[in-house]
Amino acid sequence: MEAHAERGGSPAPWIFGAAYYEEYLPYDRLERDMEMMAETGFNTIRIAESTWSVEEPRPGEYDFSHVDRAIDAAARHGLRVIVGTPTYAVPAWLAQMDPEVLALTKHGRNHYGPRQNMDITNPTYLRYAEGIIRALVRHTAARENVIGFQIDNETKHYGVSGPGVLERFRRWMERRWGSVERMNLALGLNYWSNSVTSFDELPDPEWANNGSYYCEFQRFRREIAAEFLLWQSGIVREYKRPDQFITQNFDFEWVFGPEPEKRNGYSGGVQPDISHYDAQEAVTLLGTDIYCPAQDRLTGREIHFCGDLIRSLRRGRESYLVCESQSQAFKEWLPYPGQLRQMAFSHFADGAGGLMYWSWSSIHNGRETYWKGLLSHDFLPNPTLREVGDTVRELQALAPRLAGLRKRNSIALVVSNEALSALAFYPTDRDFPYHAAVHRFYDALCDRNLECDVIFDRETDWSGYRMLVFPSLYCASEELIGRVRDFVAGGGTVFAGVRSFFTDGSVKVWPDAQPHGLTEVFGMRYSRYTAPVDVAVEGAAAEYWMELLEPEGAEVKARYAHKYWGDYAAVTKNRYGAGSAWYLGTVLPADAAGDWLLLAASEAGLTPPVEDRWPVCERSGETPDGKRVHFVMNYSREDRPFITPWSGRELRSGLSCAAGETLILPDWGVVVLEEG
Amino acid sequence: MEAHAERGGSPAPWIFGAAYYEEYLPYDRLERDMEMMAETGFNTIRIAESTWSVEEPRPGEYDFSHVDRAIDAAARHGLRVIVGTPTYAVPAWLAQMDPEVLALTKHGRNHYGPRQNMDITNPTYLRYAEGIIRALVRHTAARENVIGFQIDNETKHYGVSGPGVLERFRRWMERRWGSVERMNLALGLNYWSNSVTSFDELPDPEWANNGSYYCEFQRFRREIAAEFLLWQSGIVREYKRPDQFITQNFDFEWVFGPEPEKRNGYSGGVQPDISHYDAQEAVTLLGTDIYCPAQDRLTGREIHFCGDLIRSLRRGRESYLVCESQSQAFKEWLPYPGQLRQMAFSHFADGAGGLMYWSWSSIHNGRETYWKGLLSHDFLPNPTLREVGDTVRELQALAPRLAGLRKRNSIALVVSNEALSALAFYPTDRDFPYHAAVHRFYDALCDRNLECDVIFDRETDWSGYRMLVFPSLYCASEELIGRVRDFVAGGGTVFAGVRSFFTDGSVKVWPDAQPHGLTEVFGMRYSRYTAPVDVAVEGAAAEYWMELLEPEGAEVKARYAHKYWGDYAAVTKNRYGAGSAWYLGTVLPADAAGDWLLLAASEAGLTPPVEDRWPVCERSGETPDGKRVHFVMNYSREDRPFITPWSGRELRSGLSCAAGETLILPDWGVVVLEEG
Amino acid sequence: MEAHAERGGSPAPWIFGAAYYEEYLPYDRLERDMEMMAETGFNTIRIAESTWSVEEPRPGEYDFSHVDRAIDAAARHGLRVIVGTPTYAVPAWLAQMDPEVLALTKHGRNHYGPRQNMDITNPTYLRYAEGIIRALVRHTAARENVIGFQIDNETKHYGVSGPGVLERFRRWMERRWGSVERMNLALGLNYWSNSVTSFDELPDPEWANNGSYYCEFQRFRREIAAEFLLWQSGIVREYKRPDQFITQNFDFEWVFGPEPEKRNGYSGGVQPDISHYDAQEAVTLLGTDIYCPAQDRLTGREIHFCGDLIRSLRRGRESYLVCESQSQAFKEWLPYPGQLRQMAFSHFADGAGGLMYWSWSSIHNGRETYWKGLLSHDFLPNPTLREVGDTVRELQALAPRLAGLRKRNSIALVVSNEALSALAFYPTDRDFPYHAAVHRFYDALCDRNLECDVIFDRETDWSGYRMLVFPSLYCASEELIGRVRDFVAGGGTVFAGVRSFFTDGSVKVWPDAQPHGLTEVFGMRYSRYTAPVDVAVEGAAAEYWMELLEPEGAEVKARYAHKYWGDYAAVTKNRYGAGSAWYLGTVLPADAAGDWLLLAASEAGLTPPVEDRWPVCERSGETPDGKRVHFVMNYSREDRPFITPWSGRELRSGLSCAAGETLILPDWGVVVLEEG
Repeated sequence: MEAHAERGGSPAPWIFGAAYYEEYLPYDRLERDMEMMAETGFNTIRIAESTWSVEEPRPGEYDFSHVDRAIDAAARHGLRVIVGTPTYAVPAWLAQMDPEVLALTKHGRNHYGPRQNMDITNPTYLRYAEGIIRALVRHTAARENVIGFQIDNETKHYGVSGPGVLERFRRWMERRWGSVERMNLALGLNYWSNSVTSFDELPDPEWANNGSYYCEFQRFRREIAAEFLLWQSGIVREYKRPDQFITQNFDFEWVFGPEPEKRNGYSGGVQPDISHYDAQEAVTLLGTDIYCPAQDRLTGREIHFCGDLIRSLRRGRESYLVCESQSQAFKEWLPYPGQLRQMAFSHFADGAGGLMYWSWSSIHNGRETYWKGLLSHDFLPNPTLREVGDTVRELQALAPRLAGLRKRNSIALVVSNEALSALAFYPTDRDFPYHAAVHRFYDALCDRNLECDVIFDRETDWSGYRMLVFPSLYCASEELIGRVRDFVAGGGTVFAGVRSFFTDGSVKVWPDAQPHGLTEVFGMRYSRYTAPVDVAVEGAAAEYWMELLEPEGAEVKARYAHKYWGDYAAVTKNRYGAGSAWYLGTVLPADAAGDWLLLAASEAGLTPPVEDRWPVCERSGETPDGKRVHFVMNYSREDRPFITPWSGRELRSGLSCAAGETLILPDWGVVVLEEG
Repeated sequence: MEAHAERGGSPAPWIFGAAYYEEYLPYDRLERDMEMMAETGFNTIRIAESTWSVEEPRPGEYDFSHVDRAIDAAARHGLRVIVGTPTYAVPAWLAQMDPEVLALTKHGRNHYGPRQNMDITNPTYLRYAEGIIRALVRHTAARENVIGFQIDNETKHYGVSGPGVLERFRRWMERRWGSVERMNLALGLNYWSNSVTSFDELPDPEWANNGSYYCEFQRFRREIAAEFLLWQSGIVREYKRPDQFITQNFDFEWVFGPEPEKRNGYSGGVQPDISHYDAQEAVTLLGTDIYCPAQDRLTGREIHFCGDLIRSLRRGRESYLVCESQSQAFKEWLPYPGQLRQMAFSHFADGAGGLMYWSWSSIHNGRETYWKGLLSHDFLPNPTLREVGDTVRELQALAPRLAGLRKRNSIALVVSNEALSALAFYPTDRDFPYHAAVHRFYDALCDRNLECDVIFDRETDWSGYRMLVFPSLYCASEELIGRVRDFVAGGGTVFAGVRSFFTDGSVKVWPDAQPHGLTEVFGMRYSRYTAPVDVAVEGAAAEYWMELLEPEGAEVKARYAHKYWGDYAAVTKNRYGAGSAWYLGTVLPADAAGDWLLLAASEAGLTPPVEDRWPVCERSGETPDGKRVHFVMNYSREDRPFITPWSGRELRSGLSCAAGETLILPDWGVVVLEEG
Repeated sequence: MEAHAERGGSPAPWIFGAAYYEEYLPYDRLERDMEMMAETGFNTIRIAESTWSVEEPRPGEYDFSHVDRAIDAAARHGLRVIVGTPTYAVPAWLAQMDPEVLALTKHGRNHYGPRQNMDITNPTYLRYAEGIIRALVRHTAARENVIGFQIDNETKHYGVSGPGVLERFRRWMERRWGSVERMNLALGLNYWSNSVTSFDELPDPEWANNGSYYCEFQRFRREIAAEFLLWQSGIVREYKRPDQFITQNFDFEWVFGPEPEKRNGYSGGVQPDISHYDAQEAVTLLGTDIYCPAQDRLTGREIHFCGDLIRSLRRGRESYLVCESQSQAFKEWLPYPGQLRQMAFSHFADGAGGLMYWSWSSIHNGRETYWKGLLSHDFLPNPTLREVGDTVRELQALAPRLAGLRKRNSIALVVSNEALSALAFYPTDRDFPYHAAVHRFYDALCDRNLECDVIFDRETDWSGYRMLVFPSLYCASEELIGRVRDFVAGGGTVFAGVRSFFTDGSVKVWPDAQPHGLTEVFGMRYSRYTAPVDVAVEGAAAEYWMELLEPEGAEVKARYAHKYWGDYAAVTKNRYGAGSAWYLGTVLPADAAGDWLLLAASEAGLTPPVEDRWPVCERSGETPDGKRVHFVMNYSREDRPFITPWSGRELRSGLSCAAGETLILPDWGVVVLEEG
């Protein structure tokens, strides 16, 4: 366990378990639950992160009997415990004591009832939050089977606004800009009479007509959220043992696909309301919540995207814990046989070091009654639980080979909180938000089995990468642009999509030729764009946005097929220094976009390890003893043949296989091949 | 008339008439209107229920001159009068005197302008409401041609909320639960830190994340609404003559079908905002408002559903008054020739004892300008009025045979205010609300000419029923479940749809095998469900929800056709004691669902009286002298042949007919056959 | 220039130019911009209308340095200047000084950030508005190259509401109606208890259930807006030179078509929130903003509708200035080559005397970043600018022939602010708002090359018209109805669409046969209407609304094809006095509606000058020296042959042509033919 306290690595054996809320149960079944968990092969439970009103029924009156009971019972069954601070769901008395505990947002004062309704800057809230954190961590830190703490839960700024936040924001702006003149100019506040002569005049940014100003506020609020976690982390550090970790379940932008995901959504994109890049400083063990579509919409893409992003926060040097993964979930996600196994292998193929389900059992009241746990409401064993048990045993058997797996990708996809905020203000198209731009490229790589890291634009360590992919990296400082230039000059390959590098760091459009500072690198420029209607690029329909590229040295890979726009380039490639820069001037369907990405990667010498494409998905890594391991998954309901290009051993069966041999991947199946 | 004062029966001759608002007329035409009504065969007008500002132009200053004029004029033309208390539309001065007269709802303070915008718990409102009720009833009770009073109009709780209501609710909860511990557990308030240590801490339930808590509030508010009517009723009883009735126009949940009913809606389902089961105590004559789609969307189903529910409030022992039925209505409902006649016969076939149109003439200003009355804005005779006149004369001619018709159905469909509220919180599917579940079954029965009563789950008198149908009876107490068990054991047939019996009376999911307490009765259990995608049951597409039924003794009538769910049962039938219990584990299209219902009814010995199906619709009853009378209706624009299975007499024509004889039902036509 | 000061005419040479905001520029490029404008052939810039915070950075502290710099630089390059008062975008300090400067609307208090968020009746606002207007106009009026002033910008009432406005409205109602009794009756306030005994009781009309009452408020607010402009105009007149004009950019109801216009909208209909008929009193030069769909959705119809309406405000006796026309605009409107030229010719064909683009360059921050100017964000010359330059030079070359062109149309289409407001309350159909009714008829005329004026119902000068077209002229006073009667009796032709003449001036339905007061004129009556479902009129599908017309002397041109409504007439024509009255009782597709309009026009002796139809569009006028000039335009992406019916000269090429000669109209092309 020491391995991952104070930064790094996953424990051996891997963490498996579930969130557990004895407080919610309709009758006492603690012993039976612990017994069933142990039978399932679990070694860990996560408790307490949403039960403040039980732990502190009246102001300052603490009652940790449920916490103690859970830790005791867990100990009796050989289970370890992660204790969560309960600060994301405030008790009724706290909201009644100070109505301003409930955040004021753009839509008015929040109401009591839901979680995450509080103002994380409110002094009353912070005072009582500090109290319960200190009391809880002090109370539990000495317990032997408590292996770590989770601070808060899926923390974000929750849209907090109002006078107090505005006042803090004004001071933050004052520190940031120094003078109103500098700010007025940088943010273009003269527009529509919005310039000010004092920072005290700055208006509520929630209603800004100016995207630059609005994005400043978003950045400020992301900082508030990260500071809140750092503050909690600091308190926990005062009490925890050195071998205990601190984690947080970073979650992703919840997005809504077509039916049935239109209604409930899933983990889909870069988080707008906290910067994971900043906030990871608060934890010693990276944690995340990943929920993905299931049944026939289980593709693996969402899991891999989220895993690749979390892992890349520390450039893959450490493992991470999947704090929450789905069980039976919403009715439309009841997993087909084999799917929970497949999801589990997908997480470990991405570099996870632990996997916990949400939650152990289904809840009988409240908002999440139909967001089902491993057990149904009847608490009886069921096919879902049996499959999880089998999977856990299988994975623990592989842990000696796979624990400590390292992934070193040559391709990185660059994402950005600023681009996300700015493109929410200035969308490419209402039907094509930022996360869609990101997934258009990410999925294309993933489907072609070109693994990549997902890094933030603020990550300055590009060592080891041979190709950088920029999906709509809308905001780019001179510094970043300089690094892109150097990267290409030094031999790297860059592949950029529409609207990349369009504004400076303050979301102000660069007042010269686009892409700013990179016209020589890309060997082209453009100043006009339009919406494509009946426009094709090599037979593929252009969508949402098209830039009228004017080559200045670049090789024109494709032009637009259109009566009036046919003279302009759609896809260009330019040699610059020792490297290459590709530009795709429109949005193409995933398949066509992927072909261009694959071509760019191939010309950079980066070819996928297998010829198969999705639904056959290959993910690989290197074991601590230097062996290459391949996870090959079949994300479909039909069996698929797979001709292995490698000789080696299938780790689950223990059987040897030779290069060229045909394996049958069953529906929703996985094989794990170790080379050599 | 005495017959129905103080409970019961319809007057002979039947009531026919219309709502009449002299106050709204652009010029004086009272005499001409009364004359035209008398010519139409009307015998009753309903007045005053929305004209408070005219009757009390200033606080405490009453002016009943319009009321007197109307009563006088009516008397001159042999018309009787129902006087409505005007309390559902408050005068401007009342809202100005105390702004809290306008209700605070979830969406903020109501605004002056519309009707039904007031807080029915507000003291100022109640004081002035009491004043106008007393003054009006005192003023009119002695008038000979005043036959009854309507209290308020389509009363509901109107979403009233806010501090005053919350305080009342807290006390109501305290009385109901006794201790916070008991309440916390029963409602699962520990979830997300919502538990309290004092009833005073209970938060505004409008924003509850907990369906159990929210449904408590809905139940409380339905009680408020019923109490309001009982209060009005009590005041009226102080003044009215024994022969005068008290009625109320109970209305239905207004639902919105596909175009053109998507926009304006119609009377479609169980009322969520008042319990008709409780509120009927306030009246001596049951009343109702029924509005249904017309033109090619006139199906009769909506009329029959509403009529069957209202009649069943008193188990069919008494007749009821249709207080409002449509005239020309919205433009898309302008009735085809014959349709108003058909609607009228439909009401009487359901057991109505009177029929009044809304309204006599069309209004020249205001929200309902395009919700047209019998007369158009020009006040001239027109085809609509002529058809109504013919219909009234025809029905009055039949009254001596048909008045006092009794309906004794063997099938009852069970509905529930609690299930409605709870499923609004935890919907089966956004496109399949509770009322759709109810109509899926009701319509299937109706279309197959299996008449049924529609009873509330709180109705304990199941005498005479041989089959009970439960469409998504989501909330069921142990007591109800025990009665279901006994009903089957005693020889009854039960047919239940998805999600029935799933939670207890506090909307808390039963923590054991489903259907709770009935697994032996149904001979199956289930703990998992999913959303059907490309799943068929005997060729019919499963929709919205599917439970994975595991038979334990039941006969499997059908399984799901699906790669992964094919082992589970979809339809089961079980013998239990002397009876049978059917369970349909998914939502099927109306036709397929109807086939299962018909099969279950047939196996219970309940077969439709005719083989014809909708659009041929048969409804029957028994005359006071013991003759069986059949209404056979053609809800379509084409003539249809009908082979009568009965010998007897067609009452409209007076002609005899023999069993096996073919009658031609004209488009939108009706025949009334008396057996023997 | 004197020509159009104090009413009338356009300057010679025509005004060409753009809006210019030096305040918004990211760096100093004033000289370069002026130079480029002069090169483009521009002669005028419009400045200052949205830069209050720059001009008055602190209360009462004026800084016109940017204004001076712009005027100076313009002068150096031979450019004239229109100075706009900046009152439509308030500075942050003003909103902070008095929070009530931000208007209270139906949706709550406006927020700071956007423009046009203020309460134009607020005293603080008016005090500072007066200050900046006086200071700015005093400061600039003496400048030689300042040719005029624009007062405010696209002025409307902006939905202002709240206690202050309500109080003003009550007094306005008191003056208007004199007694509450008269008002109660006229507006039908007895309905739902809304009658009052004092004007002080009148409730907030925003939430009215009564369309008559609501429309009174709309009328009142349109007056507020017009008064605001008259007030500004009065102040400007105190300072301006006699040769300087006052203008305002009247804009149109912004409407939203199918994609891609669904999102951003365009200038589409009669303005609901100010009466252009009243407000034009405030200006000496009519101005307007016209934005229309582009690329393949450029039809010319929107330009011509707006131009015909603005020109007709003064019965075509004066020219008008297009203050804003689109440049590159939104991405989906990036003009195809030739389209900006075509738009420019379209404006002059309608009678414009000047054309200014919005705006010179694209803005780098703020809401309109993607609403692009002539220059892209890089400020470099581009194809758009080059085309504008060519167009300006070409038009200026034609100005000696075309300036002072007069249009005298025989057909007028009658529109109404009252009908617009009332039909928003009582819509024909949610998918067929008033502007759609107007365009159904206008477009049909336009497409058949039947030019018309677009006049308000309050215009009493009908001299010169031979045919009046009434699309859903819902509200009509006795006075107007009398004039219609006289017009037909005197030999005119009237063509009316559904719902015309249905209510009086207070939106109260006439209580007698429809169309009120005109049954003899139209030779028919009706009292019933319905929604057409599967109803055809001579093969064309009836849509949205159908009146069941009963002829009383009229010739039935067509009946409804429908089982139940087939006896009623759909289209009637009646001779009355020396004229004819046509009535179309339903909404027909544009093509079918147009055929009836064309037939009516033809029978009135009004035939189009050419046989061609849209996309070939002919517009004509008469030069001051009496020559007839025809603009023939091809609104399509394909070349089209055009056989000229006239001999004469093509003005752009200078070539002669003979009647019967075939000209080729290139895609998006224009020819200008002078007869003789």
